[in-house]
Amino acid sequence: MNVSAGATLRVLRERKPLVHQITNYVVMNETANATLALGALPVMAHAREEVEEMVALAGALVLNIGTLSSHWVDAMIVAGKAANAVGTPIVLDPVGAGATRYRTETARRMLSELDVTVVRGNQGEVATLVGVDAEVRGVESIGAADNAADVARLAGRALGVVASVTGPVDHVSDGDRLVAVSNGHELLATVTGTGCMSSAVTGCFLAAKPDAPFEAAVEALAAFGVAGEDAARDAKGPGTFHVNLYDALAALDPETLDARTRIT
Amino acid sequence: MNVSAGATLRVLRERKPLVHQITNYVVMNETANATLALGALPVMAHAREEVEEMVALAGALVLNIGTLSSHWVDAMIVAGKAANAVGTPIVLDPVGAGATRYRTETARRMLSELDVTVVRGNQGEVATLVGVDAEVRGVESIGAADNAADVARLAGRALGVVASVTGPVDHVSDGDRLVAVSNGHELLATVTGTGCMSSAVTGCFLAAKPDAPFEAAVEALAAFGVAGEDAARDAKGPGTFHVNLYDALAALDPETLDARTRIT
Amino acid sequence: MNVSAGATLRVLRERKPLVHQITNYVVMNETANATLALGALPVMAHAREEVEEMVALAGALVLNIGTLSSHWVDAMIVAGKAANAVGTPIVLDPVGAGATRYRTETARRMLSELDVTVVRGNQGEVATLVGVDAEVRGVESIGAADNAADVARLAGRALGVVASVTGPVDHVSDGDRLVAVSNGHELLATVTGTGCMSSAVTGCFLAAKPDAPFEAAVEALAAFGVAGEDAARDAKGPGTFHVNLYDALAALDPETLDARTRIT
Repeated sequence: MNVSAGATLRVLRERKPLVHQITNYVVMNETANATLALGALPVMAHAREEVEEMVALAGALVLNIGTLSSHWVDAMIVAGKAANAVGTPIVLDPVGAGATRYRTETARRMLSELDVTVVRGNQGEVATLVGVDAEVRGVESIGAADNAADVARLAGRALGVVASVTGPVDHVSDGDRLVAVSNGHELLATVTGTGCMSSAVTGCFLAAKPDAPFEAAVEALAAFGVAGEDAARDAKGPGTFHVNLYDALAALDPETLDARTRIT
Repeated sequence: MNVSAGATLRVLRERKPLVHQITNYVVMNETANATLALGALPVMAHAREEVEEMVALAGALVLNIGTLSSHWVDAMIVAGKAANAVGTPIVLDPVGAGATRYRTETARRMLSELDVTVVRGNQGEVATLVGVDAEVRGVESIGAADNAADVARLAGRALGVVASVTGPVDHVSDGDRLVAVSNGHELLATVTGTGCMSSAVTGCFLAAKPDAPFEAAVEALAAFGVAGEDAARDAKGPGTFHVNLYDALAALDPETLDARTRIT
Repeated sequence: MNVSAGATLRVLRERKPLVHQITNYVVMNETANATLALGALPVMAHAREEVEEMVALAGALVLNIGTLSSHWVDAMIVAGKAANAVGTPIVLDPVGAGATRYRTETARRMLSELDVTVVRGNQGEVATLVGVDAEVRGVESIGAADNAADVARLAGRALGVVASVTGPVDHVSDGDRLVAVSNGHELLATVTGTGCMSSAVTGCFLAAKPDAPFEAAVEALAAFGVAGEDAARDAKGPGTFHVNLYDALAALDPETLDARTRIT
């Protein structure tokens, strides 16, 4: 496994790939700013009239069902097919899968109709997609954390994707290989949309390293986790942590990043 | 009257109720973060396909017409009826009622078709709903403040709700009882969505104390006002105040909160 | 030319004009807060049922196609016609024109069906509208900056508007007169929506000085640029800069502002 978050971050900042995000209303500003702070270029576009043309310009597509409705889901499918046609990697963030049938079925429909590269979700969401019992309260996973590794491996295998399961410890698996990422900070759970941001950051890393999605997904979570650690340093609570997070993403140093990642 | 913001906050943080919010695009991130900072779990979901199922999981429903359109209004009504069917409390925030006929009529329609628990608005908005002349410029109330207490009492009586009228001094009435809450800070008026946040916080307190909505509404405004006072301490303007507000909500101390509330 | 950002800011803060914004999901909170911090009143409303009534209350209308879709575009046209009928100035922000046909054609349609007062965009967007080749990556302009002045003058003339082209140096032209504004800071490019904010601020200045749109557009960019300079002072990155920007807008001092503007 050839993992170097620092090297991929360097490539990302040189190429400044466009990351097309069809995401939810709650976090659009936040994921756009995380993308920009990291060094890539975000674009939010959801109209059927333009998603195919927009995704053709992008290095990755991020689909997030956090505030889904039928027109948006249709546009996600159209954009996803256009991405698949040219081999552009797709990140699916199945926000709230397991909380309502509509979310579960929509996430499954996307997995069925699209060739998704990475599924990035919490344990409850990803477990839901592979039929494992999980408690999802709204958009928060309330299950036990001890089998997150199993969920990641099972999802990687069953869904034919890179499963990126975030939580106190993150687990990434392609069904065969399994990696745990221990970077991050508990304050990440106190700000809405940090999961969505980690999906956007995954899209950025995929755009910089499209031929190695498993490695890119691992690197993205490690880099985002390190930024979370830096952001926590002078934080007085969720507000200042949130602000610091953008500063920290922008300040991530490719030279020292690999030495700080905790990947096993 | 059994008012203790501290005691209710303690319950809220223990139970972490889900607060379902169908709200406007401008403040979604802000009300979600306020909810999370306080200690509850926010979920934003507006699709007709899922609102009934989602509200069934929630401890309170917050309906906010800040950027209303027909599909959203329909979903609010559907969600509200589902909430009513199981006795889940509803907060209505009639943003901009009085500014356009569409807003006034939509707010009135909700009050007519739903059993609303608390109406949280500024004086102009609430006055509009009971037919009192009021000047509403866009979404700001520009009227005189001296009769806010009368507006609250009148609205509580005429609408059969707990009327929660915020301003320099907040007034809460169920048509019979009337309480003034003097907590807060003038910087709250310099950040968009702080009214919407106070509605979300009201939803959080209702979820923790569903059997005493009048008391919960009072406690919510007192707690939010104390957080505003804390947030103002090191603020250099609306930007830093806004950030501090989330830190302050997360740092609210149930032990000392009641001693700091100014309720008369 | 009678340019005084300080004098117009003083008028703006006295009158507190309502600025009606039909804008994109990504920046709604940000442009509302910038408007409020500056001293005007923002209102976001996009429903066909109310846009005519709302714009009748406003001192300026800002139309921004950042996350356009057909219903929103229709509402922008309806609101724009209502604004034209009573002479309320319109700012058009053609976000991403040049990136997709849908954006280019929509921006052109607005320019054809409405009497737009100011077009505020980056060089690539504005160049696209006058048929000059430009590279627009998503919503970012990637072209050379050396002919920004030519683009502004050409657009002013060809479109019959005040063209306000922002970048490292801003250029404003009505096709005849041409002004360069050198205020600002490179951190503005690291936060999403600062271009949209400058459009909102332009709307605020137009509302305070509707009879001199060229001067108002220049003053708006100078004032926003000075705020950017102030915001950068203690910023540690894009997060803290973003927060400071609202503090700086609120702290802009009409007495000293003109001495700090760099207009040539």
